[in-house]
Amino acid sequence: MPTNRQWILRRRPTGEIGPEDLELVETQTPELKDGEVLVRTTYLSLDPTNRIWMSDQDQYLPPVEIGDVMRGGVIGVVEQSNSPDLHVGQIVNPGLGGWQDYTVLPAAMARPSLQIPGVPMTAYMSALGATGLTAWFGLMDIGKPQPGETVVVSAAAGAVGSIVGQLAKLKGCRVIGIAGSPDKCRWLTEELGFDAAIDYRNEDVGAALDRHAPNGVDINFENVGGEIMDAVIARMNNFSRMPLCGMISTYNIDGQIPGPKDFARVLMRRILIKGFIVIDYLPRAAEAMAELIPLVASGQIKWKTHAVDGLENAAEAVKLLFSGAHDGKLLVRVSPEPNT
Amino acid sequence: MPTNRQWILRRRPTGEIGPEDLELVETQTPELKDGEVLVRTTYLSLDPTNRIWMSDQDQYLPPVEIGDVMRGGVIGVVEQSNSPDLHVGQIVNPGLGGWQDYTVLPAAMARPSLQIPGVPMTAYMSALGATGLTAWFGLMDIGKPQPGETVVVSAAAGAVGSIVGQLAKLKGCRVIGIAGSPDKCRWLTEELGFDAAIDYRNEDVGAALDRHAPNGVDINFENVGGEIMDAVIARMNNFSRMPLCGMISTYNIDGQIPGPKDFARVLMRRILIKGFIVIDYLPRAAEAMAELIPLVASGQIKWKTHAVDGLENAAEAVKLLFSGAHDGKLLVRVSPEPNT
Repeated sequence: MPTNRQWILRRRPTGEIGPEDLELVETQTPELKDGEVLVRTTYLSLDPTNRIWMSDQDQYLPPVEIGDVMRGGVIGVVEQSNSPDLHVGQIVNPGLGGWQDYTVLPAAMARPSLQIPGVPMTAYMSALGATGLTAWFGLMDIGKPQPGETVVVSAAAGAVGSIVGQLAKLKGCRVIGIAGSPDKCRWLTEELGFDAAIDYRNEDVGAALDRHAPNGVDINFENVGGEIMDAVIARMNNFSRMPLCGMISTYNIDGQIPGPKDFARVLMRRILIKGFIVIDYLPRAAEAMAELIPLVASGQIKWKTHAVDGLENAAEAVKLLFSGAHDGKLLVRVSPEPNT
Repeated sequence: MPTNRQWILRRRPTGEIGPEDLELVETQTPELKDGEVLVRTTYLSLDPTNRIWMSDQDQYLPPVEIGDVMRGGVIGVVEQSNSPDLHVGQIVNPGLGGWQDYTVLPAAMARPSLQIPGVPMTAYMSALGATGLTAWFGLMDIGKPQPGETVVVSAAAGAVGSIVGQLAKLKGCRVIGIAGSPDKCRWLTEELGFDAAIDYRNEDVGAALDRHAPNGVDINFENVGGEIMDAVIARMNNFSRMPLCGMISTYNIDGQIPGPKDFARVLMRRILIKGFIVIDYLPRAAEAMAELIPLVASGQIKWKTHAVDGLENAAEAVKLLFSGAHDGKLLVRVSPEPNT
């Protein structure tokens, strides 16, 4: 059995992730038992929620324990199989995996990946993975977009936000994205068809919203929290909706994260706010995939991945999510893609 | 035509309503035009929202203008009629009326009141009026109570809260009320059948919730805001709901009212928060009334009214809402009930 490199959570970060919070160690993969498979990680997904899992705040899954392998979404290839259900070379998506080269697990838990001709493997980690499902369910199930409505998406050039905005356009909405650079804003309007984009590092978000959303905001797909959230809420219309997907601006802050500064507006404007986590929607994934697969396969929905090479760079790479210095869905290429 | 006393909004209150904010003046009622009626006010409804209407904060109706008659819910009797549609002596409910002895308005706007044998007139201003509708729609349409769930109601001995708790009991929920005195708490548990009541003036609300709701909170019917809201949110379960009915603890505060202190919990626990205003539900009133009328007529739902005598006492009486020194639905008896 091969040697396995694993990132171990050594202590809970305070603020930004520091060099002593995670450690890369070498271990030996265990022998396969009956019904088990050995999966070589191809891509590791890096997500804002990784930072939540490193903390011991109240959260939707148990935090990663100190001394445990860091948790993460992975896609990989069966390299050894002790099960009739999976063969060597098969591409599998074990749902929640770990920051490591290899995973040994029961075949039943290593679900075969989607494989669509012409669609690259990275799509199953982004537009056709948890990212796409997050975008689709948050927008459709909570946001319920109607033609002609105005939709604002924060972290709009991010993995989820960029899909949300394109889906909202397909539903006939006016879409305004908030992102952190002129290049990202250009990508949103020129490549993805957003109606407008606001560069929050170089523009006053409130004033820009007044310009781009003169009739107010009907859906705020909230990824960021803090001041940007407040600027959008201040412009939300009667009966507007706010799918609360994340609050990345706050994940490096210890202690409680305050809610909207003007909460009376939630009452006066009869706003709906709903927190959601994509795992709740997995039983309904087929609803979203029925719409997402043809859109991705036909190129009607565009998406980017930003792959950092080498498992050894995972701890450094995850910081890109918070600096915004990446482009689209952030992955670590842990080993080469198999020849499929 | 009779002389009319009217409360005029002279300036917007800062903090508590002060003696120079409202002025009682005498005017002459205008002559009736064709199709108009003269309605003598029997009861004036005093509600926390009166304080909102006096301010110029962002709100769900236009604020009352300086110099205008103060707005309020009323029930009254037709004293003169210039319309074939309404006869003298008929009891009418003009929806939004004013703080005044008499109202002249088109007959079409003075809707005939419900009249159910054995049910007193005050019921149409409370359990079978906007109060009952607020309780029913907030709980049923947003809270969606399921048997066995735990429901917390703040301002539970208030007009709306007391109905909410009884409806939730009828739906098979465990109901915990938060109120401001031992007497109110006793009324909730001994008369209304609440499972528990917390006296927020004499108990630590968080500790009491831990004791009375050991499995957490599924619905928080939110009337109060501030620290009590935070104590409840800290104990809300996965997929719990928070109909946001009001935030009376904050209405005398100038400036913005902050939201939950721990907003990350809304995400982690996938909480739904929805502001609502009863006027949005008026087109669906029949749904609620079909359930409320038999419950009130049969005495299965209990309710209290606290009537202050004399229009001249309205400005002082509205303060009772904020001190909590009233008991049930607060009304002003502007003139005697007609002999019906």
